[in-house]
Amino acid sequence: MHISNETYGVEHWDAAQVSFTRIERAATVCPDLGPRTFLHAGPPIEAGELPGPTRSALIGALLLERQADTPSEAARLLDKEALTLMPGHDFNAVGPMTGIISASTPVVVATDSAGRTAFSPLSEGAGRCLRFGSHDERTIQRIRWILAEALPVINSAFQGTSLNISRIIRSALEHGDECHSRSVAATNQFLIQFLAGAVRNGVESDRLTRVFRWMNMDAQFFGTFTMAAARILADSVHGVPGSPVVTAIAANGCRVGIRVSGLGDRWFTADAPVGHTVLFSGFDPGDVLPIMGDSCVTEVVGLGALSLPASPVVAAHLGLDIDDVRQRERDMERITVTRSGRYRLPMAGFPGIPQGIDVRRVIDASIVPMINTGLVHRDPAIGQIGAGLAPIPLSVFQAAAAALVEATRSQPAR
Amino acid sequence: MHISNETYGVEHWDAAQVSFTRIERAATVCPDLGPRTFLHAGPPIEAGELPGPTRSALIGALLLERQADTPSEAARLLDKEALTLMPGHDFNAVGPMTGIISASTPVVVATDSAGRTAFSPLSEGAGRCLRFGSHDERTIQRIRWILAEALPVINSAFQGTSLNISRIIRSALEHGDECHSRSVAATNQFLIQFLAGAVRNGVESDRLTRVFRWMNMDAQFFGTFTMAAARILADSVHGVPGSPVVTAIAANGCRVGIRVSGLGDRWFTADAPVGHTVLFSGFDPGDVLPIMGDSCVTEVVGLGALSLPASPVVAAHLGLDIDDVRQRERDMERITVTRSGRYRLPMAGFPGIPQGIDVRRVIDASIVPMINTGLVHRDPAIGQIGAGLAPIPLSVFQAAAAALVEATRSQPAR
Repeated sequence: MHISNETYGVEHWDAAQVSFTRIERAATVCPDLGPRTFLHAGPPIEAGELPGPTRSALIGALLLERQADTPSEAARLLDKEALTLMPGHDFNAVGPMTGIISASTPVVVATDSAGRTAFSPLSEGAGRCLRFGSHDERTIQRIRWILAEALPVINSAFQGTSLNISRIIRSALEHGDECHSRSVAATNQFLIQFLAGAVRNGVESDRLTRVFRWMNMDAQFFGTFTMAAARILADSVHGVPGSPVVTAIAANGCRVGIRVSGLGDRWFTADAPVGHTVLFSGFDPGDVLPIMGDSCVTEVVGLGALSLPASPVVAAHLGLDIDDVRQRERDMERITVTRSGRYRLPMAGFPGIPQGIDVRRVIDASIVPMINTGLVHRDPAIGQIGAGLAPIPLSVFQAAAAALVEATRSQPAR
Repeated sequence: MHISNETYGVEHWDAAQVSFTRIERAATVCPDLGPRTFLHAGPPIEAGELPGPTRSALIGALLLERQADTPSEAARLLDKEALTLMPGHDFNAVGPMTGIISASTPVVVATDSAGRTAFSPLSEGAGRCLRFGSHDERTIQRIRWILAEALPVINSAFQGTSLNISRIIRSALEHGDECHSRSVAATNQFLIQFLAGAVRNGVESDRLTRVFRWMNMDAQFFGTFTMAAARILADSVHGVPGSPVVTAIAANGCRVGIRVSGLGDRWFTADAPVGHTVLFSGFDPGDVLPIMGDSCVTEVVGLGALSLPASPVVAAHLGLDIDDVRQRERDMERITVTRSGRYRLPMAGFPGIPQGIDVRRVIDASIVPMINTGLVHRDPAIGQIGAGLAPIPLSVFQAAAAALVEATRSQPAR
């Protein structure tokens, strides 16, 4: 496949068709996971640096994997550093928030026509979730129920058909989703296809009704389907020699980092920001843990904060007026390599979404990409306390740009 | 119930909860319909004035009611004026486009907690429809199939639950629907509730799958549910002495008219406009029939063109940029009596939709309300050829305002 010297492969994103394959236990698609081997979000992190919610989610994962009978027993395993933590980015995983994925985590598996795959945890439903750091009994029991009942029902519903994630994303951008903070329209489209498929394939009515009720409580249910698809697109342009295109943006509550196509698996990191916050009442910015999660892979492919005009609701919740949104949209054009011809913003002329963040353009324009994000309290007992818009620090782009110069210099002339 | 002297009852719209009751044959809810007695859209019309698509729809209605075996036989009945035509507005009906409703037309019946009811034809599905003037065999057969299969399936799905139309409208405004030209998000929400209800109530899988496929072809399926609900709100503020609030806007392809709360059932009419058109390729404005249909009851309650900022997609299709949309939104505030506290626009600050068009404010501001509309070709064989934005002529507001002065003068002082 020819790769343009100007858009570095991003020009092929429009043609990609990413489909949902199945829900699986994570170990099925990631054999490196073991009873005490887990994935986490963002760049690598030392055991001693783990933020409260991540520690708490790991306790949940140990309980889920039956490596401990109680939270305090699990905490002791953590303190003894008796477990292995690996960045999900090294295993085609996208872990939102803490990003803790264990062998039994139910994951959405996506695939494209070239055979690339990626996976991301299935939504746990509304309310307290392991991925936000919850490990109470209800949280763990719900995941066990998902494995026992929801997983086979979802797979039965889509047996014999394929759910085109790319097409849902394209449509959702016209229905008020920017596809990171908001996936409401996409979720509705998913629910329709799920229910219709389940009916067609004869899923028993009571089981279907229970699974539907659980799904329907989480208006953002489809979010991790989008993330898995975005990861496949990002991977498809990774490793292009000399390419300045950002192929990962991720954080772990401590550091935020980027990877760049032409620079292999190296992370360029900085302290994770908190950013502009819109918090539930009773909380203030000092309560907020710095950003975490792999979900900003959506911004990597031009969704989320790069597509703010698609979601007047998200923009308005963030306190942005129409002029702000329009200005930000123009800014994003300045730091990306192209606009999509397929994924379009519902504005006059239907411009394509800006895609492919270029570290050199970021520096030339002195404009850093923003990401839309959920925010959690530092205290894992509290969970989500709001949403925000966070800038990725300029320093990571500067470091990556310098490394690109270095890499180009050290390469033999072609 | 107390009625404000400034907002004339419109202040109660936010509290109204309109629900979908059942699908019925129209004669069940409108016993005045007979084998040769039909409802039509808009203000009264003479048989000799009937535009082509309306004539053609009446031929379809005569075939559906088995009053004729062939279109030419039906046309002869029409020419002999052997049928009775009544405005749907006199019977709680909302007929989009030609608005032809016959005894067997499947209709959506809506009701509010005060016991008001209204009805509007159920969508016929995608493609050629009787309401646009089609009367070919496929059109008539499809309506017969709806009566035989879809009607009982839909009613079974909602047996024992109630579908809250008001709540769906409120949510759809945040999902890119302005709820007149576009009802895509509302339709998705409807489909989810329909499928989940059908599963819960044990509707047989093959029948459900057939009915779902038919529904799912029409992205605007929910449109007439909204119209029936809007009609109930409009009726709830009709007949308030001295009230200048518009309670009907409707057209018949020949004349457009309004009714005003304080002026009873009198119509104030003018020649129907064509307005600003966005046509399918190959057509030009000379092909377009002037506006028709009762669907602008949505504008009467603040939806449609009064809520353009809710639908960036509709605005962009109409060629309007963000500044146009914002300006129009401010204009609509100037001619309405209040803003909703419940139905909100997805803009910074989430302003309520402007509700209750006041004929006196229209004249003071010299700003007429616009309506979003589908456009049909003058030739009924062609059907829909685009969409548009049409101004309601100032003269109807002037005539109504003069009549209000007259009515107030002739009333005894209170």
